[in-house]
Formats: sequence, C-alpha cells, structure tokens
Amino acid sequence: MKQETIDRIRKFTDERDWDQFHTPSNLAKSISIEANELLECFQWSDTEYDVQHVKEELADVLVYCRNMLDKLGLDEDEIVNMKMDQNEAKYPVDKAKGKNDKYTKLNGCRQ
Amino acid sequence: MKQETIDRIRKFTDERDWDQFHTPSNLAKSISIEANELLECFQWSDTEYDVQHVKEELADVLVYCRNMLDKLGLDEDEIVNMKMDQNEAKYPVDKAKGKNDKYTKLNGCRQ
Amino acid sequence: MKQETIDRIRKFTDERDWDQFHTPSNLAKSISIEANELLECFQWSDTEYDVQHVKEELADVLVYCRNMLDKLGLDEDEIVNMKMDQNEAKYPVDKAKGKNDKYTKLNGCRQ
Amino acid sequence: MKQETIDRIRKFTDERDWDQFHTPSNLAKSISIEANELLECFQWSDTEYDVQHVKEELADVLVYCRNMLDKLGLDEDEIVNMKMDQNEAKYPVDKAKGKNDKYTKLNGCRQ
Repeated sequence: MKQETIDRIRKFTDERDWDQFHTPSNLAKSISIEANELLECFQWSDTEYDVQHVKEELADVLVYCRNMLDKLGLDEDEIVNMKMDQNEAKYPVDKAKGKNDKYTKLNGCRQ
Repeated sequence: MKQETIDRIRKFTDERDWDQFHTPSNLAKSISIEANELLECFQWSDTEYDVQHVKEELADVLVYCRNMLDKLGLDEDEIVNMKMDQNEAKYPVDKAKGKNDKYTKLNGCRQ
Repeated sequence: MKQETIDRIRKFTDERDWDQFHTPSNLAKSISIEANELLECFQWSDTEYDVQHVKEELADVLVYCRNMLDKLGLDEDEIVNMKMDQNEAKYPVDKAKGKNDKYTKLNGCRQ
Repeated sequence: MKQETIDRIRKFTDERDWDQFHTPSNLAKSISIEANELLECFQWSDTEYDVQHVKEELADVLVYCRNMLDKLGLDEDEIVNMKMDQNEAKYPVDKAKGKNDKYTKLNGCRQ
C-alpha cells in the first residue's frame, strides 16, 4: 500500500476520533466480519460473483488490517516475511507441489 | 507491501503449483479462516494476547488478500481508495465523530 | 437437542467454572471461530471432505450456540420460529422459488 | 429443537426449491456468514448490544446448522455427544477448572 493511501486511512480514523474503538480485539472482530461480507459474494456460487462487490469487501478487509498494523505498531513487510519463512519451511516444494494437504498431513503427523 | 514481498508470495505459490487451488471463492474462504485464527487470539480476553501469534495470523490474512488481488488482477491502492471515497461519504466527520454507529443509523435510515 | 444433551453441556461448563468466560461477546467470537474450523473442511474442495471432521466442527458450533442460548435465557424454538416468520415474509414462494437472490434484490430494492 | 420447528425449516427449503443450493460447502459458508452477522452485534462493544438483533442472527446460525444436519443425514444429539466425549477427555476438570487455556497448553504440548 502506498504511503498516501496509508495516510488517508489514518486521517479518516483520526478525524472521526475512532481510535478509541480500535482495540486489537475489536479490529480482529472487524477483519472477520468484513472477510465474511467478502465470503458472502461467493455464498451460493463459486463462479458467478459481482466483481465490484468483491473489490469493496476486500478493500474493507485491507483497511482493517492496516488499522491493526498501525494499532500494534507492526510493519507489514516484516510480519509477512517472517510468516513466509515459516510457510516455506512447513511446505517444502518437493512435498507440497500440486497438493493442498495441510502441513501436518504432509509431514506424516497426526493433527 | 514492497514489490519484493509481493514477488516472494507469488513465487511461493508458483513453485508449489498452487494457483489451481486459488479460485476467488477458495481464497475468500481462506481469508475468513485465517481471520478467525486471528480472532482466536482474542477468544477469551480482549487484553491478554500473544503478540507473536497475532503477527502470524495477521500475516496469513494479508498473504491471502494478496493472492486474491493477484487472482483478480486488482490494484490494492485503487480498490482501497475507491472504498475510502465511499466511507468518507457514508461517515461524514460532523455526524460520525466519536460514534460507532453504523451509517444506516447515522443517516436516520432503517437498516 | 434432547434435554439430557443440554444438561450435559451445562454440567461440562459448570464443573470447569467456565461460565465466567462465557460472555455473549466471547460466545459470538467462539461461534465464528468454530464455524470457520467447519469451513476449513471445505477450504480447497467443495466435494471432498472428511465427514468425521465435519461432524466434530458442526458439533462445536452447536455447543457454543447452546451456551449462548443459556447465557441469554433464550428458547431455541421461540427464536427460530420468530426468524422463520421473517424469512417467510422476506422470501415469498412465488418470488423466491429456485432463486438464490437476496431478498433486497427479489423485492427490487437497492441494497 | 422441536420436531415441528425442524419440519418448518424443511418445508421452507422444499417450497422454494432451495435444496439445490444447499451443498455442504455452501452451508458451511452460510454458517460462517451468519455467525459473523451475530459477531457484528458485538463489533464495537462487549456489553452494549441489541438483544433482538442477537436473537435473529443466532436463529440464522441455528437454521443453517439444521440445514447441514439434514443435508448430511446427521443426528444432532449423536454428534454433540460424540464431541462432548472428546471435550471431557481433552479438558479434565482438575486441570481445566477456572482456566481458559487451550488443551494443547493444559497438557504441556507444543501447539
């Protein structure tokens, strides 16, 4: 996300004095709520969906994720790269290629 | 997100031949599933949470959001700014300041 | 749900002194979290799923719903019938038959 | 749920010819979507909520759970009791009393 987009989100919150509602817990609820409005675009069909509606709901998820990054003072690239380190270790190319198994299954573990 | 982080996510998917599983519908499910693993960090307490765990789950949400942006050929800044236009119109500062009411209530509409 | 199953759920909570954690908000989070563990059974495929896993996760959703009914002193049949009254009014058979449109669309409303 | 309530839900689906949309995957999405409309009642406050709204959204979750039980030919009491067997084993009273730890932590396991 560009710095000016990030700044716009922050200004939006500041001007409305909404930081008081943005506890990490409330933001986690909000991300889940918006993720499910996105999911609702695909409730009865996997292939017929309204792209404009998808864009709006995905944007809502991204805005609340940005709010949470800000609230907890996190750097997006840092946490994503930290998680990608884990994902690359859990899903080695030779075992995971073309398979959608969970890593516990790939590694012969009981879940 | 920096270009090199975006590239790393794309390479991760490509190397595992996982694009076949990344239908928009499956990605919407995945965003919701990860959003709820994030929510689980706050299941029984709003104030006591494991920051490391929060980072990991928030990163998972962000990675699947990136997958969906890629799948649908969307530009993150474009859709977020489009949505912020809507949000600014729905929540005028003078009506929304310090209130957490839904816009339908702020505007005197029945929901 | 049979009375003896309801009693078993209540006894489980009582014996562990867990009622203190069962605020309505925490139970709402828990229902969503378990609903997403259920959704995870269908994350990458709509048709291949582990029925035993589905049973377990659906049961978890039902147990937390029972906890919430108890917490708020609600009668399951009463609230379901109240909602079915609404659903029958929103989705008249002649308009809704064979269609998966949302009622706002069925009735020519803007959402 | 009383038999007549169950019958009403089944009749509602049958009359609208909606069984075609009720795949297990679509029902899992629907349970999550409704669970998040329930969660939305608590989005910004844990203590101030609209009980009527909570009743309606909880009822929606219960109706979709009933649809899924029907779709998969499951008996609600059977799956709940099967899961309670597991829960009682995972959370022994002496270890779990008054604690909201996950069973993996209670049993000294790495998650």
